[in-house]
Amino acid sequence: MSTVKASIADWRIYPVDAVPVALAHPPAILEVTWSDGRLSPFHHLWLRDNCPCPACVYPVTREQMFEIADAPDDLQLIDARIETGGVLQLSWSDGHASTFDPGWLRAHAYDTQSREERARQRVQPRLWRSEMNAQLEHFDYHQVMTSDHVLADWLRALRDHGLTQIRNAPTQQGSLDGLARRVAFIRESSFGVMFEVKSKVDADSNAYTAFNLPLHTDLPTRELQPGVQFLYCLRNDASGGDSRFVDGFAVAEEIRRIAPASFELLTRTSVEFRNKSARNDYRCVAPIIALNDDGSYREIRIANFLRGPFDVTPELMPKLYEAYRLFIRMTREPRLQLARRLEAGQVWVFDNRRVLHARDAFDPASGERHFQGCYLDRDELLSRLFVLERQS
Amino acid sequence: MSTVKASIADWRIYPVDAVPVALAHPPAILEVTWSDGRLSPFHHLWLRDNCPCPACVYPVTREQMFEIADAPDDLQLIDARIETGGVLQLSWSDGHASTFDPGWLRAHAYDTQSREERARQRVQPRLWRSEMNAQLEHFDYHQVMTSDHVLADWLRALRDHGLTQIRNAPTQQGSLDGLARRVAFIRESSFGVMFEVKSKVDADSNAYTAFNLPLHTDLPTRELQPGVQFLYCLRNDASGGDSRFVDGFAVAEEIRRIAPASFELLTRTSVEFRNKSARNDYRCVAPIIALNDDGSYREIRIANFLRGPFDVTPELMPKLYEAYRLFIRMTREPRLQLARRLEAGQVWVFDNRRVLHARDAFDPASGERHFQGCYLDRDELLSRLFVLERQS
Repeated sequence: MSTVKASIADWRIYPVDAVPVALAHPPAILEVTWSDGRLSPFHHLWLRDNCPCPACVYPVTREQMFEIADAPDDLQLIDARIETGGVLQLSWSDGHASTFDPGWLRAHAYDTQSREERARQRVQPRLWRSEMNAQLEHFDYHQVMTSDHVLADWLRALRDHGLTQIRNAPTQQGSLDGLARRVAFIRESSFGVMFEVKSKVDADSNAYTAFNLPLHTDLPTRELQPGVQFLYCLRNDASGGDSRFVDGFAVAEEIRRIAPASFELLTRTSVEFRNKSARNDYRCVAPIIALNDDGSYREIRIANFLRGPFDVTPELMPKLYEAYRLFIRMTREPRLQLARRLEAGQVWVFDNRRVLHARDAFDPASGERHFQGCYLDRDELLSRLFVLERQS
Repeated sequence: MSTVKASIADWRIYPVDAVPVALAHPPAILEVTWSDGRLSPFHHLWLRDNCPCPACVYPVTREQMFEIADAPDDLQLIDARIETGGVLQLSWSDGHASTFDPGWLRAHAYDTQSREERARQRVQPRLWRSEMNAQLEHFDYHQVMTSDHVLADWLRALRDHGLTQIRNAPTQQGSLDGLARRVAFIRESSFGVMFEVKSKVDADSNAYTAFNLPLHTDLPTRELQPGVQFLYCLRNDASGGDSRFVDGFAVAEEIRRIAPASFELLTRTSVEFRNKSARNDYRCVAPIIALNDDGSYREIRIANFLRGPFDVTPELMPKLYEAYRLFIRMTREPRLQLARRLEAGQVWVFDNRRVLHARDAFDPASGERHFQGCYLDRDELLSRLFVLERQS
């Protein structure tokens, strides 16, 4: 069956797999029976709100001009008909008319069956443990830079696994900038647009020392932690300094299973993260494990070296320490980790709100070590991928 | 009483208003009795975790090196003493020693009374209605640029009221950039670092048309809406185009009072916001009114022209429309609004996650209208203010 474009609501394609075949009309509702038997009720205000006609949606911006707050309280649907191709044609008591493409209507139906179907289709992260050492996906820098197809494959891997590696990047200034901007603009922070990871005498973060950095997420002190982190190796001649990664969602999932009370506490207790530099004073209070409305994982927020004192009731305090120590100890288990040395021309790209990263201590006297990093937000990763998938 | 700095945990000052005068030692707890009679229990792990000694906290970065996950399971506090000035001196079964400044310890005590005291001291937004037309605080551009004292006053007004105006900015390129960077780096978006608000033929947002824009927050399609918005007028010779503002927290507070079921629905129901441009495809699902853990307001997220179709159960749909229409209709009430024409050299600076803004339609044929805008995040506003207050 072909796609009927009654009007354009957005740039996505809504295939017509089923069409309306019958209509019923209880008060304030239009009940659509579909060709596959599904029954979808649509409230009058919902239908009027979503009218895609050029008077309601400005065609240049595709943004709505009509406001449902302006619909009269006594608005009535006075006629509803199914036309050729399953197009739904509605007439309103105030003289307005609305036409709905069956593909769009089906994709947005909110009957129980349709809502459950959409919930099942939602992309889920694929959790990983140490098997990632063998399964890590890597992509060639030049292919990512020149092929939209490879770019989309890389971004999907990043979205689903939260950890990828790019190889064969030219070891020169500008390589990382180009790679990041192939996705979107870079998210600046107080450390700059691009940050240079070398050991510094006047370090304002433990990242700029030669110490080991325990598994953590970057910038937990900001309300929105950066969604995507790039770590690019220009030179790595120092001994030590290997990278370690852990899928924070996999850690959370184990805790959910073996210690549900600790899991509950880590999702419900807000913890403060504090930045203590001379020039900044960021504070953020948020849970270590954050869930979405549907119970799926939204993010992990952790960095022991940036954590403020716990501030919960005396009754909860020992339980919170039990949960926190369990979480940290679990991140350290080799069976959950990927460990690898990053070589010049290689770039780690990972979901900073899911995958914890660590650096082993290194010996700055043994050779030069120069990494560069930058951030993007998840919004940009997902938007870029959606647009690429529109074209394919 | 003078401040005793046993060791430095951060850059803040913790006045010593009370000192420990007695210690008791039930299992796993140290109970401190303060000079004003308050009783604060401290769990052993909490005390060990927060040890500020130079082995536990790297003095250069002030970041913690010690990890509480490494404390032995059988760790015991073997001695606790109060020393001169109320300093608390602890000895641990593994040989470690910890010294606590009484000001810092009191500021982080987590007994019920201390926690309630901190909750009361938390800065609360000052809600406003149309009286803001007379009470709007404005600040002189040159004073803000040259005086840290005026800068702090402005940022406090912005934090507390969510709406301020800067006047006498030179009407030239660079003025807005300078003002924003006086606070922090600018948050880039898909519209650029700095966006020019003029009517455009190929508009990719209704902002770039001459239409009226209903009261809204900017970028509700992004997970983190920009916290601070600057709107700077370089030229305003067109008829129409006045600015309108509404305190979204005040609207929410009225709904909480007159229609608690609608309030509940707007805080608990996630709504999708969709960007529909040719080059981007941002989607964000979040409630219209978001609350913090303690029930205080976190943010308002609303832009009718960027809203996706409601997706809730058929039972909730009519109730959600009732709540949504109530919210929108209330934002339009003049008794809740500030309305003013922005003149050349003036800058609106407002909390985009609290204060809704609107633009009346204007006549692009009647004269030139040129605004510039940019964003900062709340993190940057608050950090800048905290650092300024350290110095004062």
